[in-house]
Amino acid sequence: MSHNIVLLPGDGIGAEVIYAAKDVLEAISKKYNRTFQFSSYDIGGVAIDQHGTPLPDETVEACKQADAVLLGAVGGPKWDNNPSDLRPERGLLGIRKALDLYANLRPVKGFPKLLHASPLKEEIIQGSDLLIVRELTGGLYFGQPSERIDNGNAVVDTLSYTKREMERIIDKAFQSAALRNKHLTSVDKANVLESSKLWREIVEEKKSEYPDITVEHVLVDAAAMKLITNPTQFDVIVTENMFGDILSDEASVLTGSLGMLPSASLAEDGVGLYEPAHGSAPDIAGQGIANPVAMILSSAMMLRYSFDMNQEANEIEVAVESVLNQNYHTADLKNEHGTLVNTSEMTDLIVKAI
Amino acid sequence: MSHNIVLLPGDGIGAEVIYAAKDVLEAISKKYNRTFQFSSYDIGGVAIDQHGTPLPDETVEACKQADAVLLGAVGGPKWDNNPSDLRPERGLLGIRKALDLYANLRPVKGFPKLLHASPLKEEIIQGSDLLIVRELTGGLYFGQPSERIDNGNAVVDTLSYTKREMERIIDKAFQSAALRNKHLTSVDKANVLESSKLWREIVEEKKSEYPDITVEHVLVDAAAMKLITNPTQFDVIVTENMFGDILSDEASVLTGSLGMLPSASLAEDGVGLYEPAHGSAPDIAGQGIANPVAMILSSAMMLRYSFDMNQEANEIEVAVESVLNQNYHTADLKNEHGTLVNTSEMTDLIVKAI
Ligand SMILES: CC(C)[C@H](C(=O)O)[C@@H](O)C(=O)O
Ligand SMILES: CC(C)[C@H](C(=O)O)[C@@H](O)C(=O)O
Repeated sequence: MSHNIVLLPGDGIGAEVIYAAKDVLEAISKKYNRTFQFSSYDIGGVAIDQHGTPLPDETVEACKQADAVLLGAVGGPKWDNNPSDLRPERGLLGIRKALDLYANLRPVKGFPKLLHASPLKEEIIQGSDLLIVRELTGGLYFGQPSERIDNGNAVVDTLSYTKREMERIIDKAFQSAALRNKHLTSVDKANVLESSKLWREIVEEKKSEYPDITVEHVLVDAAAMKLITNPTQFDVIVTENMFGDILSDEASVLTGSLGMLPSASLAEDGVGLYEPAHGSAPDIAGQGIANPVAMILSSAMMLRYSFDMNQEANEIEVAVESVLNQNYHTADLKNEHGTLVNTSEMTDLIVKAI
Repeated sequence: MSHNIVLLPGDGIGAEVIYAAKDVLEAISKKYNRTFQFSSYDIGGVAIDQHGTPLPDETVEACKQADAVLLGAVGGPKWDNNPSDLRPERGLLGIRKALDLYANLRPVKGFPKLLHASPLKEEIIQGSDLLIVRELTGGLYFGQPSERIDNGNAVVDTLSYTKREMERIIDKAFQSAALRNKHLTSVDKANVLESSKLWREIVEEKKSEYPDITVEHVLVDAAAMKLITNPTQFDVIVTENMFGDILSDEASVLTGSLGMLPSASLAEDGVGLYEPAHGSAPDIAGQGIANPVAMILSSAMMLRYSFDMNQEANEIEVAVESVLNQNYHTADLKNEHGTLVNTSEMTDLIVKAI
């Protein structure tokens, strides 16, 4: 049985890190006798340049046919002044919607060897290990109307959700908590927003279906504080799209390991998409110095969630950890006592450890 | 000339800290021969209990007639399950709207003596001194429709702004930057939201009116990261209501001095409202141990912004700093080498220093 993986390198460092992940997957394929087939398609800025759209139909088609999708990153200053529908980000929003990738899972866990790079004091960040479950296809980033009104003198965006959209992401979060430390923090702004009130009601309703999970409600502004003052209090955090966007980026810098953080975006039955938590980093693109670890760990998440290859996923994670434990690091991480390596050296080290 | 100050103690520790601020203002009044007249009105949970509404008409009337308003805090678990229009927060949102308090200014500055309490490493937080200018009467917290639709199977909230509402807050931010370090960071989500695109256009337009201010645009998710990784890069941050809610609370914990942070909410010509950045802290309410400093510094902001009493405002700020420098601290701040004091002791120390 062969697994068909679509690669979407995208912009900036996207291509550099995605081909690193491919090398690692090929090492896994040899060791475990698995067949992975890769094909690459355009998305984001590069797709605008090549095809005049950030999300060509053939990219969508290929992803729909695939068993899983790996995405590098999209965006860059070159396209920053484009009109809305010709912006790289539209490609990302579009593929999420087209594949109905409603659940974005972002684990945030410090690597002991890298905690020194955290902006937080070690006693605060130590032991933190959380998973943010972000709703990815609804809310303010997709609602209509989203337009100028009143002759351009006013503007409106719309935050809308169906009950069903909330239910499925909340279920996913309960299920994720069941596989972890059985604590769920639901984040909303129920003291102000009607959408948050419905959200909170659904969380309350669902509690009885998951009796072994403890549930806590935290307002989004308080959550933004607690992530910094007490990150270890969290296990699984679930929230709607925009709050999740802000909080997951906030959380991603806590451990000092942004270049290490993977993410998975999942559909109900369909194909999953895996991408690093970091962006396209145009400032270092093309130099071969990007940290490939987040992308490589994203491919481990793919093995686990899309292909049920737990052992293979663990193998990658253990290999990464062992290389880091030998004090190898890329340029994004300062470490006086370590050995600085570039993208392909880091990748080779991980491949060798497999 | 007498200055008529309305006190809105509100809930939880609100009353404790507001009467502390009143004591300090009375000390100022003696020393500088100023006449302040105080009257108290209900808002929030206490108003629900007394009047059946979180914002009685007489409170609004009194505030409109006042020269300035001091607010303690609203909210508490007692009212958490009330229907929307009988929640304490409605009182706060209502008074902001009634007084057209469109500009919320929240300075975040570490006290050297307290930086040890910061969750961030000292080398990261040291020297940070920023001002968040949050739009306070528009956006998602006020837009209509905000309701269940489709027989309760879906829900919608609305983020709406007029151009004029954006212009006035952006002007306010440029003017604030002109009085500080002349750097303005505008935060939006212009890669996705139509409202943010208009926002960014207005910032770009206004740039030429303020040629000595440098302007930078940062996406809200990136801003949530940068506040933690590099807080000293900011001077003035301007953003819309909800982003400002989240980012200002995030910023408020960076220096370890949440109990020290004041805020001002200003109208175009009318009365200003001053309140601490912290909440009603129901867990410690009634014990007389709350930190009154944020409220006291809020009253200093009142003297400066509403009454043009710069010297008097400075006097309060210097007095606070000197008491902190003597290592006095309230229970919210751990300090082994310091002297623990309660609310009234802290207040007396500040009064004596004046
Ligand atoms: C690029 C942008 C549209 C996207 C988002 O906000 O969803 C990104 O910030 C992310 O978090 O994946
Ligand atoms: C109580 C709530 C409505 C309020 C807000 O979100 O505006 C508060 O969080 C604040 O920031 O002043």
